Amino acid sequence: MATDTAVPVDPQQSEHPDVGRRPTIDVAALTALLDGRHAEVRQLVRDQLAAQAQVLVDAEEMTRAEFRERVKDVVVEMAGTGQTAMGFPEQYGGGGDIGASVAAFETLALGDLSVLVKVGVQFGLFGGAVLQLGTERHHEQYLADIVSGELLGCFAMTETGHGSNVQALGTVATYDAEAQEFVIRSTRPDAWKDYIGNAAAHGTMAVVFAQLVVDGDTKGVHAFMVPIRVDGEPAAGVRIEDDGAKMGLNGVDNGRLWFDDVRVPREALLNRFADVTSDGTYASEIDNPGKRFFTMLGTLVQGRVCVGGAGINASKVAITIAVKYALHRRQFEATSEAEEELLLDYGLHQRRLFPLLARTYALHCAQDVVAGRLHDVFSGTLAPGADVDLARRELESRAAGTKALGTWHATQTIQECREACGGAGYLAVNRFAALKADTDVFTTFEGDNHVLLQLVAKGLLTAYSSEFEEMDQLGLVKFVAGLTVETIIEKTGVHKLLERIKDVVPGGSPSSDGGDQDAGLLDPEYQLAMYRFREEHTLAGVARRLKRGVDQGMNPGEVFSRVQDHVIAAARAHLERLVLEAFVAKAAELPDGDLKVAFDLLVDLHALHGIEQDRAWFMEHGRLTTQRSKAISREVSALCRRIRPLAGDLVDAFAVPPEVLRAPELVEAP
Amino acid sequence: MATDTAVPVDPQQSEHPDVGRRPTIDVAALTALLDGRHAEVRQLVRDQLAAQAQVLVDAEEMTRAEFRERVKDVVVEMAGTGQTAMGFPEQYGGGGDIGASVAAFETLALGDLSVLVKVGVQFGLFGGAVLQLGTERHHEQYLADIVSGELLGCFAMTETGHGSNVQALGTVATYDAEAQEFVIRSTRPDAWKDYIGNAAAHGTMAVVFAQLVVDGDTKGVHAFMVPIRVDGEPAAGVRIEDDGAKMGLNGVDNGRLWFDDVRVPREALLNRFADVTSDGTYASEIDNPGKRFFTMLGTLVQGRVCVGGAGINASKVAITIAVKYALHRRQFEATSEAEEELLLDYGLHQRRLFPLLARTYALHCAQDVVAGRLHDVFSGTLAPGADVDLARRELESRAAGTKALGTWHATQTIQECREACGGAGYLAVNRFAALKADTDVFTTFEGDNHVLLQLVAKGLLTAYSSEFEEMDQLGLVKFVAGLTVETIIEKTGVHKLLERIKDVVPGGSPSSDGGDQDAGLLDPEYQLAMYRFREEHTLAGVARRLKRGVDQGMNPGEVFSRVQDHVIAAARAHLERLVLEAFVAKAAELPDGDLKVAFDLLVDLHALHGIEQDRAWFMEHGRLTTQRSKAISREVSALCRRIRPLAGDLVDAFAVPPEVLRAPELVEAP
Repeated sequence: MATDTAVPVDPQQSEHPDVGRRPTIDVAALTALLDGRHAEVRQLVRDQLAAQAQVLVDAEEMTRAEFRERVKDVVVEMAGTGQTAMGFPEQYGGGGDIGASVAAFETLALGDLSVLVKVGVQFGLFGGAVLQLGTERHHEQYLADIVSGELLGCFAMTETGHGSNVQALGTVATYDAEAQEFVIRSTRPDAWKDYIGNAAAHGTMAVVFAQLVVDGDTKGVHAFMVPIRVDGEPAAGVRIEDDGAKMGLNGVDNGRLWFDDVRVPREALLNRFADVTSDGTYASEIDNPGKRFFTMLGTLVQGRVCVGGAGINASKVAITIAVKYALHRRQFEATSEAEEELLLDYGLHQRRLFPLLARTYALHCAQDVVAGRLHDVFSGTLAPGADVDLARRELESRAAGTKALGTWHATQTIQECREACGGAGYLAVNRFAALKADTDVFTTFEGDNHVLLQLVAKGLLTAYSSEFEEMDQLGLVKFVAGLTVETIIEKTGVHKLLERIKDVVPGGSPSSDGGDQDAGLLDPEYQLAMYRFREEHTLAGVARRLKRGVDQGMNPGEVFSRVQDHVIAAARAHLERLVLEAFVAKAAELPDGDLKVAFDLLVDLHALHGIEQDRAWFMEHGRLTTQRSKAISREVSALCRRIRPLAGDLVDAFAVPPEVLRAPELVEAP
Repeated sequence: MATDTAVPVDPQQSEHPDVGRRPTIDVAALTALLDGRHAEVRQLVRDQLAAQAQVLVDAEEMTRAEFRERVKDVVVEMAGTGQTAMGFPEQYGGGGDIGASVAAFETLALGDLSVLVKVGVQFGLFGGAVLQLGTERHHEQYLADIVSGELLGCFAMTETGHGSNVQALGTVATYDAEAQEFVIRSTRPDAWKDYIGNAAAHGTMAVVFAQLVVDGDTKGVHAFMVPIRVDGEPAAGVRIEDDGAKMGLNGVDNGRLWFDDVRVPREALLNRFADVTSDGTYASEIDNPGKRFFTMLGTLVQGRVCVGGAGINASKVAITIAVKYALHRRQFEATSEAEEELLLDYGLHQRRLFPLLARTYALHCAQDVVAGRLHDVFSGTLAPGADVDLARRELESRAAGTKALGTWHATQTIQECREACGGAGYLAVNRFAALKADTDVFTTFEGDNHVLLQLVAKGLLTAYSSEFEEMDQLGLVKFVAGLTVETIIEKTGVHKLLERIKDVVPGGSPSSDGGDQDAGLLDPEYQLAMYRFREEHTLAGVARRLKRGVDQGMNPGEVFSRVQDHVIAAARAHLERLVLEAFVAKAAELPDGDLKVAFDLLVDLHALHGIEQDRAWFMEHGRLTTQRSKAISREVSALCRRIRPLAGDLVDAFAVPPEVLRAPELVEAP
């Protein structure tokens, strides 16, 4: 609750001595820095968004049915520009550049998010599944039409009974050897496919995930190309229901699918990782069904990378509006009796907005790293000699975690910015209505954020062992119980990083207290050392608690349940370290100059605000004295004051096109 | 971030020894306890909501224009049952019971919130202003028609240029002595009335707040009865604009009003506190214009009480759905390989929902106290000899603070519950869409929450002196700078409460550390002592920082800006103490038995979770050792496990009618 409490106001003390310079920001240069190597494609998308900005108004004024058609038209039109298929092979009309495809998608999040999600459904989920899980026969048959938007389709994985636990799906595909067909059936009362984009109105085909049964044996979840509409009507045996009104994203036609013995030919199996041969034999290069399933899922990781980036970019819109508003809106007399005070000159307002602004920059940099890794893993451009499988598993974990952080950040930032714009923020014309309603489900789709953080923790605790993905909670507990805590920590590699703490934390060794000098607060090595310490300590604590619970004879599930919030905390600590590292690394790349000074301020604010928020933990674990904790709060406030004159430029650098920013009365004085 | 970290799992230790009993809850008795003395009117409203439940569907399916008409019809129909005018005098068709009117309004928040807000606009804001600011001539002329819903009207206070700072409004009413009329004019470019409910479509009259100018002298803000529509068309000189689509509450016709020399007769001034006599003289019993203004505003405090209660009741809907869902939804194998685990058996899920559940109970009890005070102050039923003016000022502060806490709680609870229901929570049929969109502006209207907390802090720092309301930020800083810290603390009365700490905090005096035994954690006296300590200490810290800043010659506005987050923290600390006291007092009233055991668990969870959330502050201020801090986290988890078997009954006791709960697939297993 309290920050900065019981601390005397002392202008000398609260400004840091070695950083008195106020930088002048070259906004275009900062935009170029953020846009990075995909600046061109980002600009292409921005131009498209500006041209299509009317869709934001239509979202408010049209009926649901009309708006769905409108969004479909926009998506198909955008497909014509090439921006939606950057990640597909060139021979099918794609751009052949995975990194560019992520950049394009992220940037779409500055505009209407139904358009974004419909693009994601069509080109990411549906098209991505055909590309990644299918083989040449599927590519030849479908990809060109998918890329052009001629063939719209669904990614039918989620079922109402099983959202996150995909391995337990209740849809079954039984192989009929005689007919050489699969018979697809929704077996349980809760086994209908739900929330499926493109299902309620526009999809013709669906990639359906179902338990494959061959010769009476269940082979685990596989994917099948299934026609769901013929001439606009549900195909025989397919029942379709509309999901109806949703909180947001009403331009996307989500629906439900039931299959009543729908027959598809043997070739409909997306057979990159497993096949049923013409003589009716099941064959896969991956023997273990769990491993097979997670290998398949792993190829779809791009969806998570994209959603995380979308959350971060949607946050940019919100923070841009809130900062611009606070730069002209005055309320109450404060420093002068002649004129009311600008909102942004209030310390509280700075405290509300600037840590979110700094974090948006931080997450942007972290997302860049993830998108780069994705590109390298899927384009075969990893460094020579790299362990490709390990890189893939680490990528999956990092994508999951960055998705969780990026989407929670969107929820939080949009809410805070709406409130910071008062009643005006409630009007649809001012963007927050759509931003809030549309992004809300980002924390859930492409994996519930808490489930994703558990995945991250599992990766850490098992050092991304090749079996880690198929371990369930029980498996994880048993695995951890079989190791020593030291082994776990050693394997994570965090420990190695900690060696350096001794050199950078005032007061000496990691176990001694940080002392009371705050000379080191703005040293990135100090900041990183704190984040690393938290990561190692939290992770070791989880391992210890899991082991102890098992040793004491408790049910492993019960042990997991009790330690669960600690598991989540460990994942967060890990991810926050990765985010900070990415941010610090980006700052370190910059040549000396004003841009670097500005960037460093943001890094410091992000890093110290993160420590401040979790300062209870640091105190509880002997890494922070109460005096130093208070000094950090003072420094955060001081950094906010230093960022104040730069704030307008810092949001302008996000380069949100004015046409999609809208908010006419918020972004400029009336 | 981390809770419960690095703590061994030990079933013995984490259960508290003296509270092993699992109570059986009599749901009807618990509902009766919560409903209190207005059980009958609450039930009347629940029945109405159930009968009108179709409006929740219409909100999703109708166009904005259709839905506005629909909501108007529902409101007028409800007016016929008497439930919307409980607070008006009986001679005009009202119920003559202010407490009942708050209870009725709060309960409406279980249903469609456009209906709630339209009721609030018509009967609370518009009708309330006529009742409280007008005199018999206005009452006779208007109240019966307002009560019946025949005359719909607006409360035209807020202007786009001045949301929270009402004293600075730019609408001017100049008295024309010759014509005996007021001439009303929107003077500045940003002086239009904005977000005015009933303005865009249904309002015939408006209570317009404007700067009164008599004989060239500005007399401050006064209220006038102004016809804005004649036969459905804007009245001469009145320009009306629709606010258009909003994030939510689209059944309310918010709009903008401009006045271009609109003339109203002298009698149109709502003249309870000031009048212009027939000979053109301004007269008021309150000389000080600021005091006059705040006296007028003070009579409208019921609006804030009502909105706070509405936020708390909307939270009940969300938490009921989320808990019911988690009681049948299973996800992943955990304790058993045969069956997936119930969501509510996960420690994390308990941690996410139960503190919110406990806080909903706590805020319900705190709201009861505020509503009771409101009733007593406005019905003249204060204890004999009570200082009525002081009671009024304390009520205003407490109403402001409870409104802020209750509405932030709604935002947080609805968000967390939506996420806890996954993708299903995103479908409109499952209620969160409307709950989230409609309640969002609660944190802003009837006073921005941060501005309200500053009001609370100002009351504390000035001991509710008779001038405190009219002090601006500069005035406050100067006032505080002129006192000693001891005087401030002495006057707040917190200090007196602290005397008792010595007896209840293990380890002795307030200044010594709490020690490491956790025997006292479940003692309400310990919990209250912690909350009181925080309140006094935070408040004294604010006073000290404000004084020091002024002493050092800083601009008082700059001093305020820097201390602002501390000011907010002091207000929060104060309010949290009041909430806990109300909760503890309610528990203390209960006879021994199962209900009391259950209630005590909720009190303990609420109290300790509050300390846990702010444990950094308590450690920084020497009130918590790191060991005891960890013990509190353990206890919170243990309390969650104990509440687990009661959770279904605890939400059932809120008695949300199934018709308005909707969420068919969430509240029961399919």
